[in-house]
Order: sequence, then structure tokens, then C-alpha cells
Amino acid sequence: MKVALESNAFFMGVEYLAVFCCGLVGGLAAVRKQYDLFAILVIAWLTALGGGILRDVLLEVPPVGITDRWSVVTALVSGIAIAIVHPEINKLKWSMITLDALALGLFAVNGTAKAMYLGTSGMTAGFLGMATALGGGLTRDILLNDVPMIIRDKHWYAVPSAIGCVCTVFVCKGRMAGLLDAEQEIGLDVLIIVLIVGMRLASVIYNIKFPGAVERHN
Amino acid sequence: MKVALESNAFFMGVEYLAVFCCGLVGGLAAVRKQYDLFAILVIAWLTALGGGILRDVLLEVPPVGITDRWSVVTALVSGIAIAIVHPEINKLKWSMITLDALALGLFAVNGTAKAMYLGTSGMTAGFLGMATALGGGLTRDILLNDVPMIIRDKHWYAVPSAIGCVCTVFVCKGRMAGLLDAEQEIGLDVLIIVLIVGMRLASVIYNIKFPGAVERHN
Amino acid sequence: MKVALESNAFFMGVEYLAVFCCGLVGGLAAVRKQYDLFAILVIAWLTALGGGILRDVLLEVPPVGITDRWSVVTALVSGIAIAIVHPEINKLKWSMITLDALALGLFAVNGTAKAMYLGTSGMTAGFLGMATALGGGLTRDILLNDVPMIIRDKHWYAVPSAIGCVCTVFVCKGRMAGLLDAEQEIGLDVLIIVLIVGMRLASVIYNIKFPGAVERHN
Repeated sequence: MKVALESNAFFMGVEYLAVFCCGLVGGLAAVRKQYDLFAILVIAWLTALGGGILRDVLLEVPPVGITDRWSVVTALVSGIAIAIVHPEINKLKWSMITLDALALGLFAVNGTAKAMYLGTSGMTAGFLGMATALGGGLTRDILLNDVPMIIRDKHWYAVPSAIGCVCTVFVCKGRMAGLLDAEQEIGLDVLIIVLIVGMRLASVIYNIKFPGAVERHN
Repeated sequence: MKVALESNAFFMGVEYLAVFCCGLVGGLAAVRKQYDLFAILVIAWLTALGGGILRDVLLEVPPVGITDRWSVVTALVSGIAIAIVHPEINKLKWSMITLDALALGLFAVNGTAKAMYLGTSGMTAGFLGMATALGGGLTRDILLNDVPMIIRDKHWYAVPSAIGCVCTVFVCKGRMAGLLDAEQEIGLDVLIIVLIVGMRLASVIYNIKFPGAVERHN
Repeated sequence: MKVALESNAFFMGVEYLAVFCCGLVGGLAAVRKQYDLFAILVIAWLTALGGGILRDVLLEVPPVGITDRWSVVTALVSGIAIAIVHPEINKLKWSMITLDALALGLFAVNGTAKAMYLGTSGMTAGFLGMATALGGGLTRDILLNDVPMIIRDKHWYAVPSAIGCVCTVFVCKGRMAGLLDAEQEIGLDVLIIVLIVGMRLASVIYNIKFPGAVERHN
């Protein structure tokens, strides 16, 4: 069974857009640190496709990030683009946060669905969805020697993706049990992505944070 | 053939205890750096199960750390626990060092044995045992952007696990050659763990260090 | 079909020399940071064989770096050697840069060829060749908590290996299509390595740098 959101041209287009946005976000981090063009390309490629590579290594299937021509081309083009238009992208702060949230949602849903349709358990699929969504940014931050954003960011970033992965597991189970048809699955998947984007943006806009350890005095 | 120390309820219990302790140690590092609850959970989970994931990726089998329900639950519970009881755990310095050493020993022995029974050579099994024992702490320190403890710690940490892995290879070979029965294998495995814990604790208590490069003047 | 440069004793010797040199370079970084002997061994081993491990994990074949006895022995001997002769090696700056460039070239060509003969597409083989050439240094720098050299080094380092990998893909395709015989393949492979070494050295000697992002004012 195919991943629902890769079943038609529109959703494939959205996926390439997500790869492109992730590449821009990653490449911009390299531009800011004044690395050379090759480093910008490597960081853009790994931010965009590193999550999928991580998922595919854990799933023991050939990694999309080094085998799918158009994904690779999209990621590299995003690296070249950001090397040229970085001042403009820098100003688009909110657009970038929104597009990054969109990519987070899309990667979470598609990563989870891909694992489910390869026959993993729901729990494993949830982990793999999160690996897909968060792995790219993780790789970028490790290469740039920063504490990864999923650890450091006080706003909701990993949490919405986790919630989205869990929801996707139930949608896939419903589809595999015949309770949902293809269109309903797509509808629910889109709803989950909207939910993830909404939670991420609400957290940044209203400065909503996830609690830390229980504060207690020694 | 099954891994000897996973053959009965008592040793399975010890293994979950080791996972739990590793999770506490990892989560505590995240609590100290004041990250949020989600980061604490991620770090606890990866410290506890990241070594096994590394081993399983190198062995090309489905990673326990994302497929075994009870291991995952144990790791996540340890993350929640440390978020609440961190002041108490902080005070238990020696208990924690001992439990961490116990986990080091158990993961080294079980990781090596798992690889041996999957048919790898002794050398490969030794490397995989060390990956199991050291991989969790490695992942934690990379995520927290510290130099990994296996590189940084001047006291014996990796060395006892390496010695333990080599011993385990010989015990497994003896068992596979029919020279040892199941009980003798368990007995020797327990002895190896005691040896690893003993070396680690002796090194910390008596401040025994491993030499560095030969000191010479240019 | 075998990897051309592993087809006779001379080239196998060159490969072990490359492993040994990488181990020296890696171990030296650990010696400079005053880590203990075990850390020096781990870093030497991972610098020498980490690239191949990365390639083999992505290819889903048993990693050479934990299964091939002589590669492992060579890497560990290089770690022990550097712990003793580090003051001498420290003075051999140009020899080391040359030997490191030789290893870069050899790993790029052999990594790409290994992937091609396992049946990957040219693009995937190119990525895997670069993973082989660059993965070892990457692992070393992540463990030592530095920004990886492939990101940080302003001189040509990753770029010559990328060009070499692309050339190797075409040579392998020529060989597989029957346009080249074994000797011609070896000749061209050697030529590619000379090209990579030449580009790397020229870049360091004449201070040739790769451009960064387009400089523009906001």
C-alpha cells in the first residue's frame, strides 16, 4: 500500500516543497556561520533529507536521501538558492517558521506512514516518524556543533511532531483495517499536518513552553 | 541459542534495571542543563537504548530501542522519574556510579553475546558489545554537545567494558563448542559483570587512570 | 566484479597505508587534546575506518571497520604508533597533509567503486564514495566536539573528493559497459587519485578557497 500523501501529484509537490524549505533553513544556518558553498550544500542536503536517511537506515531499506534523484536535486538546488538569496530569506522570518513547521508536519506524517506500510508496529512507526521529522535538524546542529534544536528550543517543536506521529499511527491502522478509504485517510493526514503546524505556530506566537523538570529545592 | 543472561526472569529483571538506571543517568544530565521535559525523555531514552540501537543498526537487525515495548516504556518511565526525583538522585552519587557501572557491564556482556549468537566473528562481537555498552552515553553527550565521556573521563570507563567484551567472546565460544553448559555460562557472565563493575569502581575510588600518549619533549 | 584497486597486492598495500595514515592523523588530534590511550585508539580507529562503516551501514552490508581483521589491526597499530611517535609526526606537517590527501583520494575511489559493483546507481555510489572519504574525519571531529573539517576547512577538502567520486562513477560505468579493460580502469583510477591529491595540495599551497555564499548587503 502506498503512503497516502505520496499518492498524487499535488501531495508529491507539497513534499518537494517541504524538502526545499528544509534545505533553505539548513543552508541559512551554514551561511550565517560563513562556511563555504560546499558546506552550505552539504548542510542543506542533510537538513532536508537526513531525517529520511535516519529512518531508512533504521528500517533497513535503501535511503531515499542518496537514491531518489529528484529529492537530491531539490535539496541541492535549495542550497544554491540560499547561497544567493539569503538576505531576502533572512527577512522572511515568519514565512520560514511556517514553512519549517509545514515540513515538520509532512515529514512526521509521511515517515510514520512509510514505516507502517512496511509492516512495523505502531510504536516503531511512531519513532520512525519522529526520526524523519527531527533527524534533519538534528544532523544539521550536530555538524554545526550546536546543541540540537529539539533539545534546546523552549517552544514546542518535537512535541507536536510526536502527537502527529501517534495520530498518524491510528489513521494508518484504521486504513489497514478497512475502516477508512483512501480519501478519508488523505483528509485525516492533512488534518494532522494542520494540527502540527498550528501547535508549532501557537507555541512561538503565544510563547507557550513545555515544562521542564519539577522544580524543587535541595 | 539465546543470550544467557536473558534466559530467565531474574536476569531480565536485571536488564530492565540497567535500562532504568541508564535512563536516570541520562535524564539527570538533561535536567542539570535545564532542558524541557521532552528533551529529558529523549535523552533518557537514547542513553538507555541508544547503545543497543547502534549495535542493531550495525548488525542489520530491527533495533530493540524502537521495537521492544517494555524496554521503551522502562526508558521513558526513567525519564519521567528523574524529572521528579532529581534532587534525591543527585545526592546518591555513589549509588548512581555503581548502578551505571552495573549497566555498563550488563550491556557489554549481553551486547557481545547477542552478536555472537547471531553468528558474527569474535572480533565483530567484541566491537558490538562495546557499541552496546558505550553507545548510549555517546549519543547523550553528542546531543548535549559535550565531549563524550568515553573520550573525556580519565577514570577507567571504556577499558573495563572492552576487557569484559573480550572475556564474553571466549565464554560464548566455549559454550558454542560445548565446553560449558548453560549454568556455567551464566556463572561466568555474572563474574565478568562483577569484574567490570569492580574495575570501574576501583578506578574511581583509588583514582587509577589509564596512561595517555608517551610524554616526550620536542 | 571486484573493486579494481583491491585487485592486486600493490593496491591492497596502498589501501592499508591509507588506513594507517588516517589513523595517525586521527590519533594525533586526540594526543593534542591530551586524552588517554584508549581514547587515542578509539579516535584512530574511527578516523581510519569510520567512513567505511558509514558507507557499509548505508549499503546494508557488514561493516568492514568491525569485520575485517587486518583493517582493524592496522588502525589500532596506527593509534599505538601515534601515542609514541607524536612529536616526530607533528613535525612532518607536509608529509601528513600529503598522506591524508592520498587517503582521501583512495577512499573516494574505492568507496565509489565498491558501491557501483554492488549495483547502486551512479548518484548513490557518488554519495557513498564521499561518505567513505569524509566519514572518518567527520566521526573524529564529532567525538572531539569540533566543527567537522569538511565544514570548517576553507581549503579544498570535500570538493576534490566529490569531483573524484563523479569521475570514478564514469570509469566504473565504462568498465561495466565493456569500454575499458581491467588495466585501463586501474590506470584511470590512479589518475583520479593523483587529481584529488593534486587539487588538495594546490589548494593548501596556493591558498585557493572555495567561495562562500554570495555577499550582499541587507
